[in-house]
This record gives sequence, structure tokens and C-alpha cells, in this order.
Amino acid sequence: MGIPTLSADAPDHLDARELQRVDTWWRAANYLSAGQIYLMGNPLLREPLRPEHVKPRLLGHWGTTPGLTFLYAHLNRAIRARDLDMIYVTGPGHGGPGVVAAAWLEGTYSEIYPDVAQDEEGLRRLVTQFSFPGGIPSHAAPETPGSINEGGELGYSLAHAFGAAFDNPDLTVACVIGDGEAETGPLAASWHANKFLDPARDGAVLPILHLNGYKIASPTVLARIPEDELVSLLRGYGYEPHLVSGSDPATMHQLFATTLDTCLDEIERIRRRAREDGDGQRPRWPMIVLRTPKGWTGPDVVDGQQVEGTWRAHQIPLGDPRNDPDHLRQLEDWLRSYAPDELFDADGAPAREVRELNPRGARRMSANPHANGGLLLRGLRLPDFREYGLPVAEPGSTTGEATQVLGAFLRDAMQLNASAANFRVFAPDENNSNRLGAVLEATSRAWMAESEPGDASLAPDGRVMEVLSEHLCQGWLEGYLLTGRHGFFSCYEAFAHLVDSMLNQHAKWLKVSTGLAWRQPIASLNYLLTSHVWRQDHNGFSHQDPGFIDHVMNKKAEIVRVYLPPDANTLLSVADHCLRSRDYINVIVAGKQPAAQYLDVDDAVVHCTKGIGIWDWASNDQDGEPDVVLGCAGDVPTMETLAAVDLLRRRFPELRVRVVNVVDLMRLQDPREHPHGLPDVEFDALFTSDKPVIFCYHGYPWLIHRLTYRRHGHDNIHVRGYKEEGTTTTPFDMCVLNEIDRFHLAIEAIDRVPGLGESAVYAREELSRKLIEHRHYVSTHGEDMPEIRDWKWS
Amino acid sequence: MGIPTLSADAPDHLDARELQRVDTWWRAANYLSAGQIYLMGNPLLREPLRPEHVKPRLLGHWGTTPGLTFLYAHLNRAIRARDLDMIYVTGPGHGGPGVVAAAWLEGTYSEIYPDVAQDEEGLRRLVTQFSFPGGIPSHAAPETPGSINEGGELGYSLAHAFGAAFDNPDLTVACVIGDGEAETGPLAASWHANKFLDPARDGAVLPILHLNGYKIASPTVLARIPEDELVSLLRGYGYEPHLVSGSDPATMHQLFATTLDTCLDEIERIRRRAREDGDGQRPRWPMIVLRTPKGWTGPDVVDGQQVEGTWRAHQIPLGDPRNDPDHLRQLEDWLRSYAPDELFDADGAPAREVRELNPRGARRMSANPHANGGLLLRGLRLPDFREYGLPVAEPGSTTGEATQVLGAFLRDAMQLNASAANFRVFAPDENNSNRLGAVLEATSRAWMAESEPGDASLAPDGRVMEVLSEHLCQGWLEGYLLTGRHGFFSCYEAFAHLVDSMLNQHAKWLKVSTGLAWRQPIASLNYLLTSHVWRQDHNGFSHQDPGFIDHVMNKKAEIVRVYLPPDANTLLSVADHCLRSRDYINVIVAGKQPAAQYLDVDDAVVHCTKGIGIWDWASNDQDGEPDVVLGCAGDVPTMETLAAVDLLRRRFPELRVRVVNVVDLMRLQDPREHPHGLPDVEFDALFTSDKPVIFCYHGYPWLIHRLTYRRHGHDNIHVRGYKEEGTTTTPFDMCVLNEIDRFHLAIEAIDRVPGLGESAVYAREELSRKLIEHRHYVSTHGEDMPEIRDWKWS
Repeated sequence: MGIPTLSADAPDHLDARELQRVDTWWRAANYLSAGQIYLMGNPLLREPLRPEHVKPRLLGHWGTTPGLTFLYAHLNRAIRARDLDMIYVTGPGHGGPGVVAAAWLEGTYSEIYPDVAQDEEGLRRLVTQFSFPGGIPSHAAPETPGSINEGGELGYSLAHAFGAAFDNPDLTVACVIGDGEAETGPLAASWHANKFLDPARDGAVLPILHLNGYKIASPTVLARIPEDELVSLLRGYGYEPHLVSGSDPATMHQLFATTLDTCLDEIERIRRRAREDGDGQRPRWPMIVLRTPKGWTGPDVVDGQQVEGTWRAHQIPLGDPRNDPDHLRQLEDWLRSYAPDELFDADGAPAREVRELNPRGARRMSANPHANGGLLLRGLRLPDFREYGLPVAEPGSTTGEATQVLGAFLRDAMQLNASAANFRVFAPDENNSNRLGAVLEATSRAWMAESEPGDASLAPDGRVMEVLSEHLCQGWLEGYLLTGRHGFFSCYEAFAHLVDSMLNQHAKWLKVSTGLAWRQPIASLNYLLTSHVWRQDHNGFSHQDPGFIDHVMNKKAEIVRVYLPPDANTLLSVADHCLRSRDYINVIVAGKQPAAQYLDVDDAVVHCTKGIGIWDWASNDQDGEPDVVLGCAGDVPTMETLAAVDLLRRRFPELRVRVVNVVDLMRLQDPREHPHGLPDVEFDALFTSDKPVIFCYHGYPWLIHRLTYRRHGHDNIHVRGYKEEGTTTTPFDMCVLNEIDRFHLAIEAIDRVPGLGESAVYAREELSRKLIEHRHYVSTHGEDMPEIRDWKWS
Repeated sequence: MGIPTLSADAPDHLDARELQRVDTWWRAANYLSAGQIYLMGNPLLREPLRPEHVKPRLLGHWGTTPGLTFLYAHLNRAIRARDLDMIYVTGPGHGGPGVVAAAWLEGTYSEIYPDVAQDEEGLRRLVTQFSFPGGIPSHAAPETPGSINEGGELGYSLAHAFGAAFDNPDLTVACVIGDGEAETGPLAASWHANKFLDPARDGAVLPILHLNGYKIASPTVLARIPEDELVSLLRGYGYEPHLVSGSDPATMHQLFATTLDTCLDEIERIRRRAREDGDGQRPRWPMIVLRTPKGWTGPDVVDGQQVEGTWRAHQIPLGDPRNDPDHLRQLEDWLRSYAPDELFDADGAPAREVRELNPRGARRMSANPHANGGLLLRGLRLPDFREYGLPVAEPGSTTGEATQVLGAFLRDAMQLNASAANFRVFAPDENNSNRLGAVLEATSRAWMAESEPGDASLAPDGRVMEVLSEHLCQGWLEGYLLTGRHGFFSCYEAFAHLVDSMLNQHAKWLKVSTGLAWRQPIASLNYLLTSHVWRQDHNGFSHQDPGFIDHVMNKKAEIVRVYLPPDANTLLSVADHCLRSRDYINVIVAGKQPAAQYLDVDDAVVHCTKGIGIWDWASNDQDGEPDVVLGCAGDVPTMETLAAVDLLRRRFPELRVRVVNVVDLMRLQDPREHPHGLPDVEFDALFTSDKPVIFCYHGYPWLIHRLTYRRHGHDNIHVRGYKEEGTTTTPFDMCVLNEIDRFHLAIEAIDRVPGLGESAVYAREELSRKLIEHRHYVSTHGEDMPEIRDWKWS
């Protein structure tokens, strides 16, 4: 097959005026980009450039920027010509100056930030603020109008683009992928997202792989494989690549404009085939490979070394114009090469010819509401979660599977929002394993790849997004949320760590965007961590890690929430709350296995609203101070705590035991550290300030110490949790290995309470013997002792 | 181009005897695999199967297993025929029973675990121990002879395989990649590793993509794209795929044997071309696509539902043979379908015909020393790091770039071990950015892709592994270490989180393998986290996150070490120590920017050996107890602490200030928690038990509380650190934003020391004013005040 590379002698696609318009806009954007990196004065070059006009610290990335502005200019032409609804996802977001320049040229920037007006003073501010203390970051960031992808950590642009396109049938997402970014795992996996995008229901993604050949210091892989291999790769991913390569601007404008129109025509054809002709086949979507020099139009040779077209153009092509007169002269020549006098009017506003390329209003990519998704956000319609509650006549009297109950609620939520088309659930091949299978009664798994007889629950327009890549799930969900929709991500607890770094970036995004008045609130990112550490009996040690909570807790307190509902009804209450919330990262940890149920749905609401509380029905200190407090957080720890209370009670009926259950982990924290933190007086009222507290926690025990170290009674708090002991074994044996089981808890309580006398010695011995019995039993029978399996609170 | 799929009527490749031998071995392995999942008695089926022979809890993954055993059998044939040095990396490591069965059939298992002998009692133990309390995990794991890839968390098999092949010219690594795993990002990125493997110097990787069509509950992407698309994709990755597809065993044996021989012939040709003909071109390596039914040879239909060839075969095809007589009968039929009487001799040992396929001694993949790398490990030759030390006449009198100094040491280490060919450095395109450029004087970047004029430091046999994928760097390094070599991974601090989950798995591997006497110690995994949170001025918020330390600290204390050397000479001492260590994960955090130097190399050795100590030269409490202790850990915190001491001294010359610097973070911890933990009496001698301690820490402050919460003086310890405030700004402004700067530290010291009188009020005001001055200065000048930039300890 031939490779559709356009040759330079292709007939002119743009007429002279159009060509001029695109080129002028591009020059303006490049001028402003270089200006932002270098200047803090004289922004229009209306006087000779002097050292004091140059910033003392030069921080930014020039190399990728002219490619980004080139694409922006051409997309603007197409948007105007076709009235496209389009957003621009910039993988090489290090090229922040380019997208900031575009937003300023389009007028959006000054609408949002009036101080950065379209005049000379505004221009001075524009260039100065970039990478300047108190100014704006060097990358495309929340501060950048039109951005939904922070370009600092590479790898997520294409996943974000697909997430944005889902359920937006009229949207086209232009997604620039740098050849550096293309080496990352998440990006490499993202190409296959075209197997999950329905051309009838979803928008289009136009990937533009920008090969400028170099990373920080080395060539890139995709720029250094033969072209037929590259084409084969991209076809293998299911795209039809169109190659545009060169450096002469006029030629490149013609080539690119032709190619872009070819691709947009093809996208139109694909849409028509799917929507009018009912063609259900996965189309071969077009994409573009753009090969240009790194640092295009920048300084060619500096200090005798080739810069343009090499890795030396990555950041600052001219290192020291403030002190080196040659660099200063070269900088001035470079900036003047864009002919700034033609680009701005007398006031410093973009010249008419520049403005002519700008789309209007919300068609401007910097002002497209999809890139400020909160503008488009509609709340979810949610059924009354109380109706899904399990009946619980007496605490511990019934058994239920928490996530299965949640599944029914999610199913009906899915149904209720079907016409709004703004809710999806995401899971790395674990939806059913996590017992959320009921949602498949209301929708299917999204699937545009081949089907076979016997396939079930697969459909192009499914709303369950399953792919064996946590990165892709997270990236899709982020893109979906940032464009104003809702989602729910269920994940094996241990493997949430795969997206630790993505979570960081999303948390940082939220921290910054919540401080920007013009960014409207978006739906929270909701995680359900299930198949958790205590019930990964069959997969063992590799699947046992509760540390995602610790990771999340390092993020800004205003952004993160962690919930450990102990049973099905509390899970319902928490999930309902999370799905209604905005601008948070909510982490819910809940089990999927059959387990005891404690609270009826009304009690669950009360308990979850407080987030922490004494369980009166499990306590016997009503007549005064307790002798010991047993705290618990998490479903398995709660069960073991109650079983320990049971053991204690049978042996020491006079011992006053208080049980405190924690759903909202942040309640433990100092209110100065987290808005949910309990005041000391309330904390003391629950845990006392001087009685021993045995706290049984779902995760790594030291987190509880970290949260409570300032509390009065902290020295009396003794925490048990996961201490990295695991394997394929029985559920109860996992508890024993980590010493969070009922026997260890009861023994510790006996040890900590003074004055129990001789009977303590006997009770302690008897409980220790139980541990030995347990070990013998499981290692011969392969399952837990009946008295453990059948234990019930009563 | 034609697709090299073999048709079923290909001429017979194996003669009848060979065919029989391969099939018999395969049946034996499948029998033992199913047996491990189901049986706890009657392992030879010498009596009718009864419910009590079946385990009460069925935990394991059948679906992928028969494919793994099929491949193992065929590889064994080839190993014997060609005397291959080969290891087997099983991406679908969930199929643990298959590789355990293979190791037992080869005799290795019984050599290592004498209780699991090659007799009936050994067989009973073999089947019972699998996924049984006190037994072995359900996945390929450290306990599994021949394994270097825990198959629990998917995504790393191919990276591990390449890591194993580097510098092992005679080794062939057969790497099975499941079609589920192939959807992950790290795996998707790993295909391109062939651009970094030198056929002249390195071994070969033979990827075998096993398409069994299904994940837990859905079809897989690569099984559901047209075959020409799949072939295009794999060719695009640079491989020549050979497809084998079918389900009839006899036919499949012939097809696969032919294909395997074709591929191994081609590998031989590639090696000869590179080694004898000096061909420096990147070859098109062969690979295999094997398409077989999921759960092949297992139950076809269960309870009226198709199982073989569907996702229902993923785990346990027959759910309840202990209670369901139909299931029991089907299980017995299934097990007997392998004809166990032919497979074992009277004693229960593998029959002669089975044993005939086993390679001999170290040629057995389960006994290959490369898969127990410690057997092959030779210590690194290291130059005397003292010779690289910066001269430091007086603390703070000189300036140096810590990582640059380290670079010279690494360069010479690289040189010294060039002939041993057992040392590489890894970085995600950051080697030079992290100022380790000197290593490129001793070697190059590994590069087998195309070269262009102007390229520098690229060579097929380079030992600097740079690709813009932290996953690939980590995966290669793990594979390299696990096969007995040494490495050093430098990474931007924030982006180490990308490999959080990989670190988990490696830490778990080390925790388990250090408990296995037969697994020999391997070199530690050494991270240098640099371009750290305090000096990411140009990339800003997205690049600022010190939480990798917190993540690491959740792992087993026996495995992890964290070092924060404050200057170049301490970095040298720490790095030397880490490179000599075994079976640890060492995390070193150090800056790359010019910074003050405090300790000459001899003092550095003393300080690092203790890991924590009073800096006498910075303290003035020599005549007694201090009034306040300033603790510090990390280069920037150390500088700010010293500057705060300076401020305090000028204002309160009589104030007795003690400076304690921490290099080894674990020294802070309770000795019951970590082997490096200081006894309380020593901790108190450093920090006192009652004086205020202002601790300035590199990372999230609460980690210090977590480490010290049991210490006597804990309530007096006040920690400052990164609190998630960042952007592109000046170095000092980053400190101010997070309140770890000298002014905040000095003010806190003044606030905490009682009895300073009225002068405290004035000093406090003056220092607060400095903060306002700073803010004004940076926001107008764009750089730090000269008095900050030029400050020096004296």
C-alpha cells in the first residue's frame, strides 16, 4: 500500500490570502511565545532590545512550541471554514507559551484575566508573568484557557482526548502527541482507545503525532524508525496515518492544510456512515504525523552549535542574552524575524489580519466550554439510595455483599441518566469481579472491536468502560470529568497504585482550578477500591496493598476524602454523597465478599453523616467511662473488632468496652489539617484522653498515628493494621498474619487494661491457644475453623 | 505482503516419537496443574475421586495455564535439540500451577524443596500446597524456580525479558505475553525495547503473544482486531510475527514446532550477522502469536454453559466438585483425560517418557542460574569514592553540584566494570538533565534505532539506558538485577511515582526471596531521586512531589533504605554504600543544582556511617543543653536550617542552638520498627526529650511525625516540609511558599523558646518583614534577593 505523504509540489490548497492569514497568526503566536520565555519589558520591540528587558531567569520550553502554534493556526482556519466544535489537547504541554499566546490572540485570555489586556501594558504583563514568581506556570495548566491536560507529566493526552470525546457527538478533539510522550506506557496503550469509541454516539479524536525528533537530550524512537515501519505501527493501531513533513513555512502551510481538510472530510464521512447509514463497523480513523524541526523558526546556530532541529532547542535556545551581547542580538533578530510591527496595532492589540483567523465566541478553542467542563455540568439524577438498603433488624443478623448492593444502585443511576448521556463507570476488567455486574442490566461494555457468537454485554454504545489498563481507565475518566460529566472508577485496591502519579496530577489540577473563579466546579473523581487487601485470598501477596490511601492523604486536604464504610448500607450512603460532590477526589474502600451487616439504612445515614461514632449497641460503657476503647475503620477490621468485643465480654462481663467506628478517615485529623477534622473536645469525648484505645485499621497502621499524633490521648492509641504480611491463604488467616484478628485484639485489650487480676492471665492464655488451634486447622483443612466462619455478632 | 500463518496441512515437523514425547510431557504438566487447583488427596487418581480429595477453597487460574505448559514443552524440545541457554518469562503468571508443574517434572522443584519429592507423597504435597494456607502462592512467584517475573500485577514481562537479555549474549529469553497484559501501558511501551538491544552484545528475546481471547470477563483487544491489523501492529513494533492458531493438539504440536524452529533459526542468523559479519543494523526479530482456546483441554461445557474457549475458563472451570456430584464426575473425567497412569511410574515419579523431554542440569529453565541471578552475581569494582570528593576547607565555604560529582564516580565505575559487562545506568531521558553526563565519557546511550549526522553518544553497545518511560527503565533494571547484575536509576523525584506499583512488586519479591535459602542475594535496586521538589523552578507544580519516600516507607523495613545526603561528599559516600549492598531498595534524594558544601570527604564518611549526628560546627550548645534543636534532612532544608541558625545567632548570640542533620531517615524510627532505628537513649541524646525541636524536612512533614511518634520528646517536635504548594518560581520562593525557609524557621524557634523576652518580639517582627520584602522583590525582579542568593555559612 502506498503511504499518503503529500509531496511539496501538491497544488495550492490555500489561496494567497488564506495562506497569509494563517502564516501571520502563526508568526504572532511564535513571537508571543518567544516573548514570554525571554521578555519582561519592551514587549512590542518598539525600542532596541536591552539586557534589562530580558528576564534574569529563563524558564520554559521553546522546542515544541512552534509546532503547537502551527497546528493551532491551521485548526483555527478549519474551525472557521467548517464551524467546528473543537478542543485542543496538547500532549507536549511543556510548550505552554504557545497555548497561552493563542488564548491571548483569541481574546479569551484578556476576558478571563482583565489585567492581561489586549494592549501594550497587557502584553507586558503577558510576557512577564510567564514562569515568573507570582505569575503563571511554564506548562499548559489549569490557568490556561482551553486546556484540559496539564502537560507536565507526559503520557495522558490521548486518553484525555478520548475521554472528552465520549458522549460528545459533535465534538472533535485535536490531540497533539509529542514523540517523547509517545514513548510512555500510558500513551502507547491509549492508541487502542479507538476500539471503545462509537462514531454514532461519540465525538471524534484526531491524533496528531508531532515528530520533532528529540527529547531533552536524545532522539526519539518514533522519529528514528523507517517510515514504512511507522505507518505499519499506526495502521496496526487502527488509524490511517497522513504524513506531513518539512520546514519551509509556505510549503508546510499548503501541505498541512490539504491534509487537515482530508482528515476532517474523512471524519465527516465516518460520522455520516455511522449515523445516517447505520454502519456499525469500527472505522479506520484518520490521523496526522507532522514532522518538523524542533525549535522551528527559532535560532539556527548558537555559539557555533546547531540548535534548530536538534535537542538543543528543547528549552532555551539562547542561554544568556542578559549578559552575552551576541545572544542579545540574536534574540532581537529572532523576535524581529516575525515582523512584530505587522502583528500588533498601535495599541498593542493583535492586528486585524491576525484577528481574522480567530473563530468566534465559544468556537475559539481557548473558550470552548468543553474545556471548562463545569460550565456544562448537570447534576446526576440519582435514585433514592435508601431504597436499595439491606434490611438489618439486629446488627450482625444478616449477611450481604456490599459492592453487589451498590451495583443495583449504580444500575438504576445509569438508567436514570441514560438520556442525559453523562455517566459512565470505569474498571480495568474488574466490573464483574468487583460485583458491580448489575450495571450491565442497564447498559453494556463499550466495544467497537470484533464480536463473536457468545459475546455478552458488549455494544458500541455501552457505558461500562473496561480495558486492562488502569492508566487508560483513569485517563478516560479524567477527560470525561474535565469536560463536565460524571464517572465512577472501581479498581482492585492494590493496583490503584498504578495511577498514583496520575492521581497526583489530577489532584494538583483540582487544587489550582478550584482557586480560579472562571473554572467552574466539576464532578469529583470517585474511586471504589475493592477486592481489597483482606480479601485477596486467591491472588495473594501481589494483590495486597492498602497504601493508595496513604498516597491520597498527601494531597491537599481541601481536595481529598477517604471513606471506609463497614457494610452495604453505609457504602450506599457514602457513594450517594460522593456522586453528588464536586471538585474532590473521593476514595471509598469496601469489600465485595459476603459479610455481616450492622446498620439499617437510616442508621447508616446518621453514622455516615457524622463520619465517626460510638456504636452503642456494641458498647457496654453506657453507665460511665469505658475501661478500653476499641476503634475500627474498614469492613474486616470492624468485624474483627466486634468479634474481639464478643470474646472480651464472655470472659469479662464487667469490663466496660466502647466501640468507635470510623467511616470518614479525615475525622481523626486535627481540624487545622483537614476541614473534616474533629475538634479535640469531640475527639476526646469519643476516644477519651486517658484510656487505652486499640484501633484496628484497614491499611498501614502508621497512618492512624499520623492523623492523631496531636490528640491528647495519642500515647494511649495502639494501632493494628496491614504490615505487609500476605499470601494466598484464608480470609481469617490474613488477619492473623497481620495481627488484626479478634484474638490479638482481645489479648491486647486485656494487656492494656489494668486491674483485671489473675483471670487476665488465664484469658490471655486461652486466647493465645486459639491462635495455635487456628494455624493447625487451616494448614490441614485449607479453610477457617467453623467457629470463625460461622461467627455472628449477637 | 503475505502473513506467515502455518496451515494445518504443513508437512510433519516432529517425528512420531518426538510428537509423542512433547504431548506426553504437556499432558503431565496439565494434569499436575489441574491437580494443584483441585486436589488435596489421591494425587495419582489411583482410587475413584471422592469429595474429600478436593480442596474446600478452590483458588487459581486455569484459563491461561495449558498455553503456558504447551509452550514450556516445546521450548524444552528446542533446548535439548539446540543446547539452548534459555529462561522462561511468564507474563500470564496467574498460571502459576503450570510453571510449578514444569519445575516438578524437571526435578528442580524436589531438589529445592525436598519435601515435595518425586514420589506419591511428594505429589500429594505438591498438589495440596498450591494456594493453601502455609503453602505457595497461586502465581509464578519468587517461590517458583525459574521465575523472575511475579505474574500478579500485569505489564512487566517483556521489560523484564529485555532486562534479562542485556549483556547475556548467549541467552535466549522466551517471554509469554498474555493478551490481557498486552492492553497495559507498560507492556505496550515495552515492544519498542528492540531499539535498545544489541544483537552483537546482548541476548535474544523471543516474544510469544498468547491470544486466548479473554480477560476475566471480556474479550481482549488484540484478539479482536483483524489479523492484518495485528500483523501490521507487530511489524510496526519492529518484529516479524509468526502466527500459530488452532486447538487440535497433534496439529498444533506440528505447527508450533515448525514455527519455533523457524524463529530460533532466524535468531541464530541474526546473531551471526551481527557477530560474524559485523552487521550493525537493527534486525527484525522474530516473534510468535499463539492463538489457542482459553482453558484448552479443560472442561468444555459445565452446567450447560460453554467454558473452554471463553472467559468462564479464567479461574475455576468446575466450581463445586466437593458438593456437586456432577462437577466431581466431570473433574475426574477431566483429570483422567490426561491418562495419569501413563504419566507417572509406580512410585509417583514422572514416567520415563515424560522425563525424556527434560533438559539436563542448568539447561532446565527451572534451574537456569540466570533466573536465580544471585548465583551469577559478581560484586562491582568501584573506584575509591574519596578521590572524587570536593575539597571543603570550612563548612559552607565552597559550592558544588552533588549529582555532577557523583557522575564522575559513576563514569569510572562504568569504566572499571566494562569488561565484566554487568553495570548499566537507567534514566527516563534525564541522565544529562540530572547532571550525570560524565558517564557518557565512559560509554554511550544504548541505541539501535536510526542514527543521523550530529547524533552524539549513541551506540548499539551503550550502557546508559534512556527512554521516556519510567516503566520501561524500571522493568529493564529489575530484569537486569534479577539476573545478577548491577544498576543505578536516576529519575526526577516527582515522576518516581510512575513506578510506585512496580516498586511494590519488587519490594514484595525481595521480601519473599530473602526468606528463601536457595535464592541468592541480588544487587539492590538503587534510585537517585533528583531534580527534586525544591529545585523544579522551571517545570513547576506538576514536577513537585516528594511522596515517593512515603510510598517506599510502607514496604517491609528489612528491604527499604532512604538517604538524604545534604551535599556532594555525603552523596558519594551513600552511593558507594548502596552500590555495594544486596537485596535492598535504596532511595537517595539529592539535588543537581549548585549548592553549598559542608563536609569534607572524611567527615562525610563519618556522618553517613552514623546516618545522623550533631553538627558541632553549626551548634553553640557545647557547654550544656541546647535551648532549641534544629533538625534537618535534605539538601535544601539543611541550607535553610543553617541560614536560620545564622539569623538566630546574630540576634540572640546567647541562645544555645543545636543542629542535627539526618542522612539516613530510618535512624529516626524506633529500633523495633526498623533495623536502623536509634535506641531511645541515643535519640534523646541528640534531640533531647524536652527541648523544642524545629525539624526542617525535604518531604511531606507528617512522615517525620510517623517515624518519631514513639519518641519521648515527640510532643516537642515541630516539623516543616512540603505542603503541596508549588509553581514555577524562584528556589527560595518555593521554600517560602511551604514555610520551610530560614525566616519561618527562625521565627518558629523564637516562638518556641521561652524566656527570650522583649527582644524576641522585635526579632520576630524584623524577620516577618523580611518575608514581605522577599515577596516584593521576587515578584518585581523575577529572582531572589541578592542577600538570599549570596548567603553563605560562615
